[in-house]
Amino acid sequence: MFQAKIRSDALKGIVNIISTLVDEAKLNVSSEGISLKAVDPAHVAMVELDVKKEAFESFIADETSIGLDLDKVKEVLRLTSSGDGVEMEQDEERGRLVMKVGNITRRMNMVDTSSMSDPKVPQLSLPVSVEVSIVEVQKGIRAAESVSDHIALTADQDGFELSCEGDTDFVDLRLERAQLQSLEVEEKARSLFPLDYFSNLVKAIPSDTMVQIELGNDFPMKMNFDLADGNISVGYLLAPRIESD
Amino acid sequence: MFQAKIRSDALKGIVNIISTLVDEAKLNVSSEGISLKAVDPAHVAMVELDVKKEAFESFIADETSIGLDLDKVKEVLRLTSSGDGVEMEQDEERGRLVMKVGNITRRMNMVDTSSMSDPKVPQLSLPVSVEVSIVEVQKGIRAAESVSDHIALTADQDGFELSCEGDTDFVDLRLERAQLQSLEVEEKARSLFPLDYFSNLVKAIPSDTMVQIELGNDFPMKMNFDLADGNISVGYLLAPRIESD
Amino acid sequence: MFQAKIRSDALKGIVNIISTLVDEAKLNVSSEGISLKAVDPAHVAMVELDVKKEAFESFIADETSIGLDLDKVKEVLRLTSSGDGVEMEQDEERGRLVMKVGNITRRMNMVDTSSMSDPKVPQLSLPVSVEVSIVEVQKGIRAAESVSDHIALTADQDGFELSCEGDTDFVDLRLERAQLQSLEVEEKARSLFPLDYFSNLVKAIPSDTMVQIELGNDFPMKMNFDLADGNISVGYLLAPRIESD
Repeated sequence: MFQAKIRSDALKGIVNIISTLVDEAKLNVSSEGISLKAVDPAHVAMVELDVKKEAFESFIADETSIGLDLDKVKEVLRLTSSGDGVEMEQDEERGRLVMKVGNITRRMNMVDTSSMSDPKVPQLSLPVSVEVSIVEVQKGIRAAESVSDHIALTADQDGFELSCEGDTDFVDLRLERAQLQSLEVEEKARSLFPLDYFSNLVKAIPSDTMVQIELGNDFPMKMNFDLADGNISVGYLLAPRIESD
Repeated sequence: MFQAKIRSDALKGIVNIISTLVDEAKLNVSSEGISLKAVDPAHVAMVELDVKKEAFESFIADETSIGLDLDKVKEVLRLTSSGDGVEMEQDEERGRLVMKVGNITRRMNMVDTSSMSDPKVPQLSLPVSVEVSIVEVQKGIRAAESVSDHIALTADQDGFELSCEGDTDFVDLRLERAQLQSLEVEEKARSLFPLDYFSNLVKAIPSDTMVQIELGNDFPMKMNFDLADGNISVGYLLAPRIESD
Repeated sequence: MFQAKIRSDALKGIVNIISTLVDEAKLNVSSEGISLKAVDPAHVAMVELDVKKEAFESFIADETSIGLDLDKVKEVLRLTSSGDGVEMEQDEERGRLVMKVGNITRRMNMVDTSSMSDPKVPQLSLPVSVEVSIVEVQKGIRAAESVSDHIALTADQDGFELSCEGDTDFVDLRLERAQLQSLEVEEKARSLFPLDYFSNLVKAIPSDTMVQIELGNDFPMKMNFDLADGNISVGYLLAPRIESD
């Protein structure tokens, strides 16, 4: 059983982030909230999402799972204005999710989740942790997009850098220690990432968000951040692209 | 003879509505104003338009008819700002319409109207009449567009509904009696309509408009509304799509 | 040697105008500023640009030349907000131009200028000179674009006209002497120009600009204007299209 109401903006935030990786998602519902783990078809990136029941305007649920077609949820969200509430209810008998916005009711078939297993999240201990405004990361990505299709993240005791090398051009965005919220460096780290994945995620993050990025040497990156006053927490994992000489 | 001046917004309103059905239109001009009847090439929808001379800033005319290429009129309207006046004058000798906006003069060949006869408007007596804000209808259409290519309009003593059924999804916008300007129901009615025609028309109607919709069972729908403080009146007729079992 | 800082808006203004004609440009740098002469590949239009060092926030330079890929400069400008400063520095050793916007540094290979010679600017003495707001010219061009692919500029003692004749339509924008900043006419003049070239340039000019247009009979047009409080001056030359009978 699942019956909840959420502000359209919060639901948009959740859907925007998940849909950078998958078209369909399996929500694990409990009486305390919703969680989700998703990995993209090419196994390059993974997202872990926890939504506390406090993120909802109202929330009544038992243990259940809901298979969402994210495009359909986006269609419903396009009917909302900022501040609108969205009601969601599971119709277990017919295998449907019922979404209501004002006078509009949309009944949609749920996606079959029986073959969707939660991916295992690897445990990583990474030597660098940076806290930075997402706006800076967004700027670095925009600068990189015209030069190459991958981006290097580098950190040392002095600062953090996003850089990108093309055939004829080189671009970097450098943030000194004082321009970062925090910077912890056990050892200097540098890894290269596919720009498209990273860009899609970063563009989906609201501009007032502070993100924590964890880095190693030719290792996956972890990016953690909260939305909705901490009631939604997101963990993101992105595989590196190993540099050839 | 025809010589008139009209605010660009009023002319835009007229052109937007007619051009959902036809590319060329024959205006019937008299000393009292302009009228037009047009049917789309597939004979699915019909529009009747009456523009009183009071809708114009100035209006001097004899009995005549004017063949308009609506794309050309739109091109002229794109040169205007809100509040601009548009002068129009028939140049009978050369078969031209002369349109002026500020310093700009456009002389355009008129469309030959000799082969354009006014369609006959069928007389229908329909059991349901609903008055509703176009904004609600626009919302219902937007919701329907992602689910199917036809839309059902239903009314009973309690309310009025726009609904749409796709292969896996169902969406409806329901308005109770209290949410309607008025609702007269001789007998319950439901008809199905092609969404594209209905959508194109409805999107062309200004959002502060109250429309009257008349419905039957598997019967055409009539939609009537006024623009420009009642000086422009529009009647719209849309053929139903008969539901197969 | 070249090292300068300029407001992004001023740099945008310069780049927008040059890039209507060429993709790559050779800047001639001296201690007093920058100048450029460029002609489009089809030799239909030419632009002469003089940027005084006062147009820059800071400017230190020797005699040198810089080969710019304008698309790359546009990419950097897309990273700026209005009011941002853009630093530029020539890295002679590596043949690179280094551009900085805030924390972002872009190093780009310069274009080889050895084969780029400055075009010769023909000396023309034209019988008509009109000073007019670019807004009026922009309006005339917008009106013309739906009617034909060339535009006639005409002037006599009474006024100045942009006009355009298509197969079925005719459009003109007429400005009487009182609607012009100035009008000097030795003899009546009329020339026809390709609309695409003229349109691209005119759209790149800020709307608060007053331009001087010089005209002859089936002769090239000259258009002169200043940007950035007179610190940037632009001369534009456009070949006529000879009217056939």
